[in-house]
Amino acid sequence: MSDDSVVRPRPEAAVTLRPAPGMRIDGGFWAARQRVNREVTIPLGGERIRESGAFANLEQAARGGGRHRGKVFADSDVYKWLEALAWERGRAPSADLARAYDDASALVAAAQAPDGYLHTHTQLTGRARYSDLASSHELYCAGHLMQAAVAGRRATGDERLLSVAGRFADHLVKDLPPDALDGHPEIETALVELYRETGVRAYLDLATRMIDGRGHETLPLKGHHGPGIRQDRVPLRQATTVEGHAVRAMYLAAGAADVAAETGDRELLAALTRQWRHMVATKTYLTGGLGSVWYGEQFGGPYELTPETAYCETCAAVGSVQWSYRMLLATGESAYADLMERTLYNAVLPGVSLSGDRFFYVNALRVRAGANPDDRRAAARGRQDWYGTACCPPNVMRLLSSLDRYLVTRDGGGVQLHLYAPGTLRAGDVVLRVETGYPWDGRVEITVVETPGTPWTLAARIPSWADGATVDGLSGTGLPARPGSYYRARRTWRPGDRVVLDLAVRPRLTAAVPRLDVARGQVAVERGPLVYCLEQADHPDAGVDDLCLAGAELTDGRPLTGLPAEVVPVHARGRVHVHREEDGGYPYRTAAAPLEPEHEGPVDLTFIPYYAWANRDLGPMTIWTPMH
Amino acid sequence: MSDDSVVRPRPEAAVTLRPAPGMRIDGGFWAARQRVNREVTIPLGGERIRESGAFANLEQAARGGGRHRGKVFADSDVYKWLEALAWERGRAPSADLARAYDDASALVAAAQAPDGYLHTHTQLTGRARYSDLASSHELYCAGHLMQAAVAGRRATGDERLLSVAGRFADHLVKDLPPDALDGHPEIETALVELYRETGVRAYLDLATRMIDGRGHETLPLKGHHGPGIRQDRVPLRQATTVEGHAVRAMYLAAGAADVAAETGDRELLAALTRQWRHMVATKTYLTGGLGSVWYGEQFGGPYELTPETAYCETCAAVGSVQWSYRMLLATGESAYADLMERTLYNAVLPGVSLSGDRFFYVNALRVRAGANPDDRRAAARGRQDWYGTACCPPNVMRLLSSLDRYLVTRDGGGVQLHLYAPGTLRAGDVVLRVETGYPWDGRVEITVVETPGTPWTLAARIPSWADGATVDGLSGTGLPARPGSYYRARRTWRPGDRVVLDLAVRPRLTAAVPRLDVARGQVAVERGPLVYCLEQADHPDAGVDDLCLAGAELTDGRPLTGLPAEVVPVHARGRVHVHREEDGGYPYRTAAAPLEPEHEGPVDLTFIPYYAWANRDLGPMTIWTPMH
Repeated sequence: MSDDSVVRPRPEAAVTLRPAPGMRIDGGFWAARQRVNREVTIPLGGERIRESGAFANLEQAARGGGRHRGKVFADSDVYKWLEALAWERGRAPSADLARAYDDASALVAAAQAPDGYLHTHTQLTGRARYSDLASSHELYCAGHLMQAAVAGRRATGDERLLSVAGRFADHLVKDLPPDALDGHPEIETALVELYRETGVRAYLDLATRMIDGRGHETLPLKGHHGPGIRQDRVPLRQATTVEGHAVRAMYLAAGAADVAAETGDRELLAALTRQWRHMVATKTYLTGGLGSVWYGEQFGGPYELTPETAYCETCAAVGSVQWSYRMLLATGESAYADLMERTLYNAVLPGVSLSGDRFFYVNALRVRAGANPDDRRAAARGRQDWYGTACCPPNVMRLLSSLDRYLVTRDGGGVQLHLYAPGTLRAGDVVLRVETGYPWDGRVEITVVETPGTPWTLAARIPSWADGATVDGLSGTGLPARPGSYYRARRTWRPGDRVVLDLAVRPRLTAAVPRLDVARGQVAVERGPLVYCLEQADHPDAGVDDLCLAGAELTDGRPLTGLPAEVVPVHARGRVHVHREEDGGYPYRTAAAPLEPEHEGPVDLTFIPYYAWANRDLGPMTIWTPMH
Repeated sequence: MSDDSVVRPRPEAAVTLRPAPGMRIDGGFWAARQRVNREVTIPLGGERIRESGAFANLEQAARGGGRHRGKVFADSDVYKWLEALAWERGRAPSADLARAYDDASALVAAAQAPDGYLHTHTQLTGRARYSDLASSHELYCAGHLMQAAVAGRRATGDERLLSVAGRFADHLVKDLPPDALDGHPEIETALVELYRETGVRAYLDLATRMIDGRGHETLPLKGHHGPGIRQDRVPLRQATTVEGHAVRAMYLAAGAADVAAETGDRELLAALTRQWRHMVATKTYLTGGLGSVWYGEQFGGPYELTPETAYCETCAAVGSVQWSYRMLLATGESAYADLMERTLYNAVLPGVSLSGDRFFYVNALRVRAGANPDDRRAAARGRQDWYGTACCPPNVMRLLSSLDRYLVTRDGGGVQLHLYAPGTLRAGDVVLRVETGYPWDGRVEITVVETPGTPWTLAARIPSWADGATVDGLSGTGLPARPGSYYRARRTWRPGDRVVLDLAVRPRLTAAVPRLDVARGQVAVERGPLVYCLEQADHPDAGVDDLCLAGAELTDGRPLTGLPAEVVPVHARGRVHVHREEDGGYPYRTAAAPLEPEHEGPVDLTFIPYYAWANRDLGPMTIWTPMH
């Protein structure tokens, strides 16, 4: 089997773990999401992208002229969609897929200028190349082209796009103005991957130059924002936190992690480690979502994590998974896989409806009653068919199509399972079979199917939330496993050997530290890797805004009407805050202490997984619920 | 004395109260703010407006051509500043003021097109008049011109601007396209006042048409926003709440209240009453600030009142005072004066520094440590010298310059004191003298200086927060007075008669109702009409983000270094939340209840009035403080 990893460090790269590309998800939770992605989302994405004019832009660029339609970054929608197609083609070759891929690739190739340049907005408007890199997204689009091209080569061996991407990259190496930076990072990580695929060192050098060139306030300012909005305030090596536009910050950090890996740059890796930790400690929503500020789609200050004004762009979650995965490869530390898992289930997945045909760009963690019906902050209006800026849907498509690659790694000593799904791993002469009902069920059964006759280490992540996790292995049953670490067993395995994890998936309450004041006095329900929420659809007799818990006991529930039968709701006893309309007037009272709410009740509270909200009647929703 | 009211209902208008224009503040808190406004802010405003190119735009329009500089609404900066000049000229005639006023008025008059039209951006760019009213601010600027013109006439008798404004209004009546609406309301209230000043009924009719024309989705949409952002989603008569851009909502409501008064439209007044109450009950910050959403500078949903992402544009606070004052005139209800007072002290006044030369456009109620230094959300950076969109500073100027007019009203039965400041009221044959140290001191001494020999009623507002207020009057001393009402005494007064209010100004704690979840578990300190805050400058040994109260006892403090000696700080015992860096990682913990903070301490907490924050070293600040 060819190595169709998404990220493929060179043999000499400074990484602790390497991808184990031969993992294929073939059942369970993620296979179902991947099926909807393949059968609904990707075909629909092709139509929507066609309607947006993005294909027409390429056709016109190929013909040498015409009016550009859509955003300056419209090309990137095509490239991300092509990347998804490439991964799907590698998974299940079909004539339809091949034809769609072939047609779009040919279009891209035809649109490329003779010298390798390609950006239909610039080509069709006649604006000078690289004259407005702060806003033009020329290199951002180039990066997505390169990623699609690498995916095509790795997944199917098809080199047509790689040839286009390589010619563009060669042109950039030759003709890009010195010190040029794109306002929207993305090309950095793409150039490194193209280097990994082709061995052309100049691509890595260009990426390295761009990482080091950033943070010196050389990009022109935009609107009311300072240079931080585009990560141009502080050099990445000196930064202590993430700042600015969240998607840009994630893509830049992913690219920097790639550069650090390929150049062995420990200073850069240390800086990224520091920034990642600060992000997790102070700027990450419970869902893994990133970006609390609508204005500039950016990170707020530490602990500025208001649920209802969360931005949490779906693309930022995709970028976070990409960065964390690269940090996981670099270090082998389970915290990175913890965040990947949290983010995948609770920040990426909410970006697409269960039906696969509606999308959230912004993911609020709370929606109240009474919002203006035309408030364009997306959560109050539910998922949308598509977006004028359609970066998020195809980003989810390509991640879901390539998700298999993020689950397992290998190193000199063995294999490491980070994320769990039913499937078969083929890694050299090791073949493992994983069976699990995860995330609904914490039981993960890992069976050795083929193995060399020499000892190797099987490592399996015990998530940080998995208090009470146990392992049944060859050395005993019910052995406690430490959350936030890897269970490791080194031995000479034999076919049929089995390790069974019990990750203690059961509902639990989660509270926030005092500095996270927006959650003061409240708790959230989680169950395994899933963050839960209260949605109005399950509470016909009381407004979600007035619900509170009446105890800490949580129980699993039976399937709910309108949600897939697999979804396990969680029930708790609750009460209802009495909101006295006759109080009228100001919502503030003179009081020597916080007001004690008056209660009605009892009511049954039904929590559902946050990713599954907004799939029934739209209404108020909250992740945090008061205890009193 | 001429009637130089800001709002002057016609004799036939349906109002309960009428302005008592003969009130002059001559000492105390507001006189000091007015002096800074007159001596620092207004002269500096003139310079800044000149630097912005707004005067040059007028000069060029007068010459018939040239490049327009600044925003499309730059003219309005000149008009608001001229309005402030007019009020100041009326207060204290001086040759300098007269010259400045004359020069600017002459410039405005010269810029006017022969047919009465005036909008330098349209005139200089050659864009067709009224072709983009959703964005052009043509009528918005016209409205500010009319208000400045009315102020000039009323304050000084100068009719030059009034002639310009009248010719413009006549032109609008004649040539404005039917159904034309400005994206930014303002002209409605201005047209009614011009009608009040001139008696030209067509101005009132045009304003009425614009009020009724709004809410039918006829304005083109802007960006991602729906029609609600410009109050064009629901007709005002049907609306149950305020929505969209907060400043626009306030200006529109003020204009509608004017129309309702002059047309006797009880349905419209009832709709405004409903909207005002819903705004106060669900969309008003403790400070009186309005607008919780940066994106679109708009109202959020009910109870969406996050302190740190508060928008609370200074202009929205000015607009709120204007609307509430009109509702007070219409109804005579003290709740309107309560909100005016709260808003003046805590939402308008923070918009300008104590020194008068720095400004907040946005007024956050919380600023945390660790914000990105170039985060352009204004609070974290402190007040600015000026703004590219400079609507707020001259709005504060004109309000402070005309503030005297908002304090007292009269009706057939007597006079009503709503807001307190030392000064003399001359209302017909009644002359009253007010002496007070308010807001620092709750004692307000009202002395009858001149009076007719017939009985009349003296009414004095007892603020809604004034638990324990008492009155010493002619019928007794220490008589309890009910908060949220008017103390009323009807009698045949004699010169020297005295009523002394004790408004029980002392520090108190304020809590929020449960739906206002961002304040859960927290309290705010207030003292009299002032909202207080914790500022880092007073807490060198602990971060404001970690401070909490250790009891409900509050005491007045002594003057603080770096603040005016009159400012009374409030002290309380506090503690410090221990924030364990070694916890690192995710700020969320599995817990059956909200996390109980660990504490260090004790520490002394020093609260200062919110309006006075950001006048010393910048740092974190909060209005809400946890009780534990």
